Amino acid sequence: MLDKVNLSDRMARIPDCWHPRIVGELNGQHVKLVRLQGEFVWHAHAEEDELFLVLDGTLRMELRDGAVEIEPGEFLIVPRGVEHRPVAEREVRVLLFEPAGTLNTGDAVDPRTVADPEWLP
Amino acid sequence: MLDKVNLSDRMARIPDCWHPRIVGELNGQHVKLVRLQGEFVWHAHAEEDELFLVLDGTLRMELRDGAVEIEPGEFLIVPRGVEHRPVAEREVRVLLFEPAGTLNTGDAVDPRTVADPEWLP
Repeated sequence: MLDKVNLSDRMARIPDCWHPRIVGELNGQHVKLVRLQGEFVWHAHAEEDELFLVLDGTLRMELRDGAVEIEPGEFLIVPRGVEHRPVAEREVRVLLFEPAGTLNTGDAVDPRTVADPEWLP
Repeated sequence: MLDKVNLSDRMARIPDCWHPRIVGELNGQHVKLVRLQGEFVWHAHAEEDELFLVLDGTLRMELRDGAVEIEPGEFLIVPRGVEHRPVAEREVRVLLFEPAGTLNTGDAVDPRTVADPEWLP
């Protein structure tokens, strides 16, 4: 039998910010959950488009030509090659869809890089 | 500038059931929204894994070895080749994530097949 995934239950088991966990895989893509608080690093992904679906809180996605405020129940797709910086004044909980192997920090050098995110069973 | 997508706003503009609309594209995958009510047809997808994220209502996904009840804030991934039948006693609103070109009815012959789903701008 197939198992469903409850987003709140899984999110409650994530202990730290800026560290995505994998909760699903399909067609070479990963579904990840992540808690964000503060300012991330400017970066882009050379080969990967990235979807940010906000579950709780407000995510400000800074882009070189402006910023988008993403509220719960809204998503933004950042195409490959587009520089972006996620900023969360208060904690935000986000679902990510992106190709397996996508680095959270893209082309940036940053101590928050998670080279090999864990599955959250 | 990139545009965000509000799921409730888009869903409110879908006039009919069983007819998925495309609201996003990334990495060769489509994000679709669909309203479901009643019983769909048993089918499988030969080449595509399919993710069902429930936004409103309860979706019962019937499988040959049982059924999974999916509530709002939960998702189920149905791997390629696995026969399934979505059933919604009351209306359910669902976000789908699947490869571009995935047929809603898979390998089944059914009048509800949507060969070329529209973008919902």
